[in-house]
Amino acid sequence: MSSTAGLPIACKAAVAWEAGKPLIIQDVEVAPPQAMEVRVKIKYTTLCRTDLYFWEAKCSTFPARNTELLVVTVNASENSEFHTGTDSFNPGFSFLVFRASQPLFPRIFGHEAAGIVESVGEGVEDLDVGDHVLPVFTGECGDCRHCKSATSNMCDLLRINPTRGVMLADGKSRFSINGEPINHFLGTSTFSEYTVVHSGCVVKINPLAPLDKVCILSCGISTGLGAALNVAKPEKGASVAVFGLGAVGLAAAEGARIAGASRIIGVDRKPERFEEAKKFGVTDFVNFNDQDRPIQEIIAEMTNGGVDRSIECTGNINAMISAFECVHDGWGVAVLVGVPNKDAVFMTKPINVLNERTLKGTFFGNYKPRSDLPSVVDMYMNKELELEKFITHRITFKEINKAFEYMVKGEGLRCIISMED
Amino acid sequence: MSSTAGLPIACKAAVAWEAGKPLIIQDVEVAPPQAMEVRVKIKYTTLCRTDLYFWEAKCSTFPARNTELLVVTVNASENSEFHTGTDSFNPGFSFLVFRASQPLFPRIFGHEAAGIVESVGEGVEDLDVGDHVLPVFTGECGDCRHCKSATSNMCDLLRINPTRGVMLADGKSRFSINGEPINHFLGTSTFSEYTVVHSGCVVKINPLAPLDKVCILSCGISTGLGAALNVAKPEKGASVAVFGLGAVGLAAAEGARIAGASRIIGVDRKPERFEEAKKFGVTDFVNFNDQDRPIQEIIAEMTNGGVDRSIECTGNINAMISAFECVHDGWGVAVLVGVPNKDAVFMTKPINVLNERTLKGTFFGNYKPRSDLPSVVDMYMNKELELEKFITHRITFKEINKAFEYMVKGEGLRCIISMED
Repeated sequence: MSSTAGLPIACKAAVAWEAGKPLIIQDVEVAPPQAMEVRVKIKYTTLCRTDLYFWEAKCSTFPARNTELLVVTVNASENSEFHTGTDSFNPGFSFLVFRASQPLFPRIFGHEAAGIVESVGEGVEDLDVGDHVLPVFTGECGDCRHCKSATSNMCDLLRINPTRGVMLADGKSRFSINGEPINHFLGTSTFSEYTVVHSGCVVKINPLAPLDKVCILSCGISTGLGAALNVAKPEKGASVAVFGLGAVGLAAAEGARIAGASRIIGVDRKPERFEEAKKFGVTDFVNFNDQDRPIQEIIAEMTNGGVDRSIECTGNINAMISAFECVHDGWGVAVLVGVPNKDAVFMTKPINVLNERTLKGTFFGNYKPRSDLPSVVDMYMNKELELEKFITHRITFKEINKAFEYMVKGEGLRCIISMED
Repeated sequence: MSSTAGLPIACKAAVAWEAGKPLIIQDVEVAPPQAMEVRVKIKYTTLCRTDLYFWEAKCSTFPARNTELLVVTVNASENSEFHTGTDSFNPGFSFLVFRASQPLFPRIFGHEAAGIVESVGEGVEDLDVGDHVLPVFTGECGDCRHCKSATSNMCDLLRINPTRGVMLADGKSRFSINGEPINHFLGTSTFSEYTVVHSGCVVKINPLAPLDKVCILSCGISTGLGAALNVAKPEKGASVAVFGLGAVGLAAAEGARIAGASRIIGVDRKPERFEEAKKFGVTDFVNFNDQDRPIQEIIAEMTNGGVDRSIECTGNINAMISAFECVHDGWGVAVLVGVPNKDAVFMTKPINVLNERTLKGTFFGNYKPRSDLPSVVDMYMNKELELEKFITHRITFKEINKAFEYMVKGEGLRCIISMED
């Protein structure tokens, strides 16, 4: 039991008061965790494009799903219309799309992080004070049909919901300033020295893992890595095309490299990314802008009929179509990760499907956060997975607005924000 | 060695001299098999929609693939643009689409059949005189990348090619009348007492199997059955939607029933088909015509969010889209079997893919004919698979034009034509 257990904690948080305006670091009060909640001392956090996206709150561009198409998912869960991905062929950071809604301010953003459990609420039995953890934007209740499915990770209870600014249990915030509530973000709000998270969204990891590195496994890197390892599953020696060489795409390439792919073709609009991408196993580069023919034709020519696997991490609808049509007939599998804008429609001639191609989509790399992420941390500890390559900047919490600047400029991959310096 | 080995055989064949005109049963000469070929005495044959389609030869309606989309496949094989499927929401028989070309006449149609090997050509080592066999419209060379792939059955060498009227080896026909060649069809031409087939398209089966029943496994029934058992792979207790309750769709339902599906929802325009479909395990019926809402909505409501698997056997593009969107997020798999017309485009919002749905296509139920069909015959022998339900008519070879009449009227499922009566 920590000395602060059951009491409010006063600490610093970076509060967003207005869309697109610099965050303000100020004192907030963090209430104790309620039943099935955990209070976490954040050690390191990073900025992900989803944070930027909701901080910018450009509502008119928010992707909304066609309501006619919503039914299946809506029946399954009210939280179903959200996804990780990367922005429209300007990848580099994962982000989330959601149905049009009013932006919530003031709000504490942040969802890629690592920390240590400070206290646990009633009923939390599998987490203890002092545990090293990753808070995750999507959860695993363990009881719903999705959690019980061998393949799904889209938990009915704890599926990502960026439009909710409160805790699930009582519909209230655990953050306040002078008694006024501050909105949560993705149930994680890691831009705070302390935060409260549903225990189903807290992943206990190897206590030896360096938190300043494995913090990036909370979102984008796992999304790309899992798309390769869990969904595309290239065989040893396979050819893999990766669309988009930002952080998610490079994580997909890293996954393909780990799986033993012999050829990894990177597709991007920016040729300068190729040099960096080589570190992640990318062997060939195709410039999406350069070509006067469809990318799928170029790739088919390069590979005697098509790649064995493709992974689309941009969200550009033409890239999605190319990614599907560039896989070999008979056995090719294309995996969609990136989320396009609301008006985009995926279109292909049915013969491309009938010729024994497979199209799959993935959310968070199909990782069930609590069950699967500890082994991803261990992959890093065993030196199978290389995380250092993704970390291009390091700043202190006080400098957090710099991380937004880097991202707006498209500079680097991941910027680690240390809470303690 | 049979007494006719190495010699031409004079026998009866049903020759199509002109598009849409009744076949004429007359004497033909069947040359001996060349290297890697087999001459087969046909015992039973049936009519499949592909035969009807090419016999009608309505060139203006022949589906052609968008040449821009052809590249990947064309690189792999010149024979790649053909597929089995069923006609536009008037299922009942499988058929093939192909790229626009001139119809070939005179021609001997027929590709669903069973027979006995009469003689084998040079180099044929795994088939002998007297073997009971199924000739198949698509083959298995055993050496190409597709044959070596664990999943593909789209053999580079022997993939279906309905525009070829000659044998692969020498570009010549083995059929003649007064020295004038008669075109082959699909390399099988089973509307003849004897025919010559590439050994890679001849499947040796259990000699105890009744040829008048297992002959229907050469095409449509295996296509639907394999779509369920090899591609959709429903788990025990799963829910499965089958679009189209013709022979292929009912074979898919039969496969779902064998796999232990607890609920099989049949979708068709003809409610009168439901009664018949119950024999194949169909438990629920949705009328494609009746609904004022998309079928995927109806099915999602019936199944708490969507079916576990769907199998599309009509080729109607709207049914294809519904079949994809009616599967549950997180784990749903949709399998396309039917082939739409050349202008059809498959369209869906990417979110439907991203929500962890899978879209797959299949050709001939993903069965590698020589490796896999013997075990399908054995499934029938072991009473797991029920074939009698598909056989609705029986006629003699002399009455072959009746089979065309039944099919044009949409009457029944399979009509067995006995060559010996």
